[in-house]
Amino acid sequence: MLSVDTRLRVRYAETDQMGVVYHANYLIWMEVGRVEYWRAAGLRYRDMEREDGVLLVVAEVNCRYLSPAVYDEEVIVRTTVADATSRMIRFEYEITAADDGRKLATGFTKHVFCGADRRPAKLPKKYHERMGIGK
Amino acid sequence: MLSVDTRLRVRYAETDQMGVVYHANYLIWMEVGRVEYWRAAGLRYRDMEREDGVLLVVAEVNCRYLSPAVYDEEVIVRTTVADATSRMIRFEYEITAADDGRKLATGFTKHVFCGADRRPAKLPKKYHERMGIGK
Amino acid sequence: MLSVDTRLRVRYAETDQMGVVYHANYLIWMEVGRVEYWRAAGLRYRDMEREDGVLLVVAEVNCRYLSPAVYDEEVIVRTTVADATSRMIRFEYEITAADDGRKLATGFTKHVFCGADRRPAKLPKKYHERMGIGK
Amino acid sequence: MLSVDTRLRVRYAETDQMGVVYHANYLIWMEVGRVEYWRAAGLRYRDMEREDGVLLVVAEVNCRYLSPAVYDEEVIVRTTVADATSRMIRFEYEITAADDGRKLATGFTKHVFCGADRRPAKLPKKYHERMGIGK
Repeated sequence: MLSVDTRLRVRYAETDQMGVVYHANYLIWMEVGRVEYWRAAGLRYRDMEREDGVLLVVAEVNCRYLSPAVYDEEVIVRTTVADATSRMIRFEYEITAADDGRKLATGFTKHVFCGADRRPAKLPKKYHERMGIGK
Repeated sequence: MLSVDTRLRVRYAETDQMGVVYHANYLIWMEVGRVEYWRAAGLRYRDMEREDGVLLVVAEVNCRYLSPAVYDEEVIVRTTVADATSRMIRFEYEITAADDGRKLATGFTKHVFCGADRRPAKLPKKYHERMGIGK
Repeated sequence: MLSVDTRLRVRYAETDQMGVVYHANYLIWMEVGRVEYWRAAGLRYRDMEREDGVLLVVAEVNCRYLSPAVYDEEVIVRTTVADATSRMIRFEYEITAADDGRKLATGFTKHVFCGADRRPAKLPKKYHERMGIGK
Repeated sequence: MLSVDTRLRVRYAETDQMGVVYHANYLIWMEVGRVEYWRAAGLRYRDMEREDGVLLVVAEVNCRYLSPAVYDEEVIVRTTVADATSRMIRFEYEITAADDGRKLATGFTKHVFCGADRRPAKLPKKYHERMGIGK
């Protein structure tokens, strides 16, 4: 099973007045993680969207916060695909601090493949193998 | 059971290139909803944080997306408390479009009460009644 | 000269670890202000974009920060049009705290009218009068 | 004169419904640029803030948008210090697309050094040399 690690550094803009990262930003990091997963699988999400009109519409997100991320630290988003069919895909994420390895958060996102009209559609066959569908 | 409706208008900044609201922004709307819940219960979250050093640390979020919100439409966030003890609180949200009433999303957030040191702490007694704790 | 006041309440998400509003968010508030200016002028920016393919592309922004805005306070964005032709429009903003009237920031944004292809285009005549163009 | 290049990749969250990067995000990129400038100069902004209570309060920002940045492209933020005294510092930025070198934006930010109480204060002497002050 492919597992892709993406590193990013916490931005000042991502903190809030509690002095730690505002919780909604973890969802953005998950997005960064799955785009890099895509790239590691030999695909570019941008091209899928532009050229094949494939949209990955978010159906559900979940995140459990374990330890706060702080400004300027490096964070690793580990992304895997937990489930994938021609209709939907479910990514799982584990977010850790690069320096001390403490676990910051775990979560998942569930997506429905849609056409340019935003209606559910099957993922074109040519993408199946790389996404581990139909094995 | 108290149920508080908060209205807000979708900002251009909240959209993404799919032409709808970027999914992480729903978490920010939930935050707006629970602050207004607080206010409707006769409390001001800002004062709890400042004066009593009570922090509401987010432990988990979940959101299911049902229909996309679009730019400039009015959105209603209905907030309720599903569970509350002196240690934690769980809010539930239903987000609908003001114009046509379509359901946009449902979700919950779970929070742990912490002291100024970000360690778990009991919510001071004086807040219990208004938050429906201990009944 | 039309001057439109828009009220908004500072969100927790908009603060940073300095304990005040992160500076980039003032640009979002300016956007909220000019959309409401549009509405007060009898226009809906969303419809201009959708129906006439008129895009208001940002060419320049400037903001001077005078006093920090804090969480949960109400803020007033006063928006005026400083200059407008069929090619461009320049908005000016004065942002103040609703409670104590202290001036938080002043700024401007300059926009170029573009067609759906994002190339500069003239604003359709029907909008001129309401935007004070050609007087 | 030190000039520091920082690379970042456009996030989906940073786009808006025009299909390009929402303009306020350039200010966040500038922030990323100046933090890396700091690091290249042998300093860590986080430590200055934590250990010496030095805050870099934003006094003014300006950005001119020349060409839109698009999703998933790599962007280079070139940061320089245009002026610095023990009281204030002014950064300048040039943002370009890594792939085709087109210029996306230019801008500046002006900051006042403040103490932990957010009042203007002199930058401690030990930082002067690295920031090119007093030469």
